[in-house]
Amino acid sequence: MGFKITIAGLGLMGASLAKALRGWREAEIGGVETDAEVLAKALDSGVIDKGYILNEDNARDALDADLVVIALYPRAALKFLQDFARCAKEGAVWSDLTGIKGAVAAEARRSMPAGAEFLGAHPMAGRESSGYASSDGGLFAGCNFIITPGEENTRAAVSLIKEMAAYAGAARVVETAPERHDRMIAYTSQMAHVLAAAILNSGLLFESKGFEGGSFRDLTRVGTLNPEMWSELFIMNGAPLGGVLTELEANIAALRKIIESGDGERLKAALAAATRRKAEYLNAPCSSAGKDDVR
Amino acid sequence: MGFKITIAGLGLMGASLAKALRGWREAEIGGVETDAEVLAKALDSGVIDKGYILNEDNARDALDADLVVIALYPRAALKFLQDFARCAKEGAVWSDLTGIKGAVAAEARRSMPAGAEFLGAHPMAGRESSGYASSDGGLFAGCNFIITPGEENTRAAVSLIKEMAAYAGAARVVETAPERHDRMIAYTSQMAHVLAAAILNSGLLFESKGFEGGSFRDLTRVGTLNPEMWSELFIMNGAPLGGVLTELEANIAALRKIIESGDGERLKAALAAATRRKAEYLNAPCSSAGKDDVR
Repeated sequence: MGFKITIAGLGLMGASLAKALRGWREAEIGGVETDAEVLAKALDSGVIDKGYILNEDNARDALDADLVVIALYPRAALKFLQDFARCAKEGAVWSDLTGIKGAVAAEARRSMPAGAEFLGAHPMAGRESSGYASSDGGLFAGCNFIITPGEENTRAAVSLIKEMAAYAGAARVVETAPERHDRMIAYTSQMAHVLAAAILNSGLLFESKGFEGGSFRDLTRVGTLNPEMWSELFIMNGAPLGGVLTELEANIAALRKIIESGDGERLKAALAAATRRKAEYLNAPCSSAGKDDVR
Repeated sequence: MGFKITIAGLGLMGASLAKALRGWREAEIGGVETDAEVLAKALDSGVIDKGYILNEDNARDALDADLVVIALYPRAALKFLQDFARCAKEGAVWSDLTGIKGAVAAEARRSMPAGAEFLGAHPMAGRESSGYASSDGGLFAGCNFIITPGEENTRAAVSLIKEMAAYAGAARVVETAPERHDRMIAYTSQMAHVLAAAILNSGLLFESKGFEGGSFRDLTRVGTLNPEMWSELFIMNGAPLGGVLTELEANIAALRKIIESGDGERLKAALAAATRRKAEYLNAPCSSAGKDDVR
């Protein structure tokens, strides 16, 4: 019997993963969607081999897979586990692509049946646009692919997810605890999205049109937010994100005060220090908590 | 007699401009540098036709040009005007590429002799690296090219600088007052550079290595600051920049408080509003204060 994958949710992330995994282990790829139109498109174009609008009757069939990847918004992912984890087949590995890992891991611990296991993942890849239409098999090329294995996971499951990440094109797999993921991601990803919104909220936005260069476009690129998804992610990660933003406000204020003081030498030293930190950061190895080059 | 250009300073901006202007009006391009090695390289590779290390004796010769473009750090640009504006030839147009316009315009008003005129410019283009070695004739391709003409400028001078911008590859020329430039640029450019430094100053920087995605790389791209140049720019623009940063701190804090309150609906509305503002911004015409498509 061949290897079977089911991907729940064929939005940007799920459909991109389906495309990226085509050919891996010669797997049959099933898709689960709530949108019949998206399901039909994905079937017609061969992105998936089988498709389901889940209900009580077909859930066992739809989820009869060796690997199930949940590619839903955070709250929907939790609900999916609550409703359907019981359908996990014996020996199956379930994973997800959600941008928050603590809450998902906790729910999986409650919901997953004995005989199947859950191992969360978060590929650091995205697009400004969302939905099936934006999906792209190259989305994961070169990305950091974070996984959050726990003591309950088998080495076989960890290997499987690493193999999946490598096949999808990830540059490296980073292993960490769910809670640490959530703290780090508040800084490396969520902060950038809050910042883009804060910058777009400036009274100078429209007045300054025509004065922008590359740095402004970079800052506001992620400002085309998917409000539903990001509000869920931010609220579910409120404490770490609040901490990161508070620190950022203080770090901006500290530089502002030097600027306002007019002390050029002190400012020059501060900017040189930040530039040095960036160079050190670029040369630093990945965080000690676990890095694993998959290539 | 052919058209003559002199570019003072063959760093990233000046040497890029020299390369970009090659062929324009079949001009002879002269370069002024303090670094003899850079001057030799620029001469050897044909980036300039003539080169000078300025001194009292050769200043008149070196600056005997129809167009002089000062491509120096802010304080050096002011000093250059103080020391050498008196050498401007009758009918010449002098310009600059400095990222601050109020202080330069004020100095030009004091220093420029009758019979020659000054018209400041600021192309919104740059690189993370600086110096002659990073220069690139394509640097200005597609950029916003800001100019700050005053009542003292002739229409011929304004036309000349617009023609130069178009030849160098600018997408559009935006005309504005020096003081307005300085306020806008605090928001569209300087803020991004302060932010990059503030983000790099976080205690999480090294710990988070391996967790970054595209948004983090975008935020910190301009964090390789040229401390000398940026500290001068920030200090000379302290009041507008301080105001922009204070507003940003408040806008971040406002979003943070919604996140910390746990009010998902309110957060969703706030993020949707920012996303809407971005879409409106992208569709908006350039600021009313003057835009002129050069293509």
